[in-house]
Amino acid sequence: MKRTLSVCPKFEKAFQIIGKKWNGLIIEVLLNGECHFSMIADAIPELSDRMLAARLRELEALGLVDRHVDTGYPVQVTYRLTEKGQEIQPVLAEVHRWADKWFVSAAEAKIK
Amino acid sequence: MKRTLSVCPKFEKAFQIIGKKWNGLIIEVLLNGECHFSMIADAIPELSDRMLAARLRELEALGLVDRHVDTGYPVQVTYRLTEKGQEIQPVLAEVHRWADKWFVSAAEAKIK
Repeated sequence: MKRTLSVCPKFEKAFQIIGKKWNGLIIEVLLNGECHFSMIADAIPELSDRMLAARLRELEALGLVDRHVDTGYPVQVTYRLTEKGQEIQPVLAEVHRWADKWFVSAAEAKIK
Repeated sequence: MKRTLSVCPKFEKAFQIIGKKWNGLIIEVLLNGECHFSMIADAIPELSDRMLAARLRELEALGLVDRHVDTGYPVQVTYRLTEKGQEIQPVLAEVHRWADKWFVSAAEAKIK
């Protein structure tokens, strides 16, 4: 079994972004459409506001998220996925398919 | 924009496993077939042996990896994906597709 394997650097980079803690869940929420900060925060209760703000800045720097500031009273800030961000959807769809097959939900476990 | 969003717990659990640092890359290597410890270690140079051993134990406990011990001199330990582990392949395939579209490889960047 002498084989030399190596991992593609592009794959590694992509996985570091998509796989980074919270990023998948944040992108999942934003796939529903543009969101205010508080909507994302409410959808992922375990994620602190501070961490969410840091992640959104990173995702913006990576070109996955657009931050839109609507000046007014009060100032409204919305976040939306760029095309690059939206195209992560098939990855998340496959994660859903896998999860649905291999994990029993809490509700189903109670019935059994 | 008053909507209530929530993230599916099964998806969250799946993402915690697949997205956890190194797991995606380890699964990627094991998709090539059964591997000795050293082959996985060689394929992911930045990953320490200690961390790789810890991750393999976790993946085994989650039912994604089978550890096979072939007694003899020397003892041979091989790792392979279970069916549950193999079925992560479509997730990784979509990560590849996204990475190929959105990242310029180091080689291509040099040409441009």
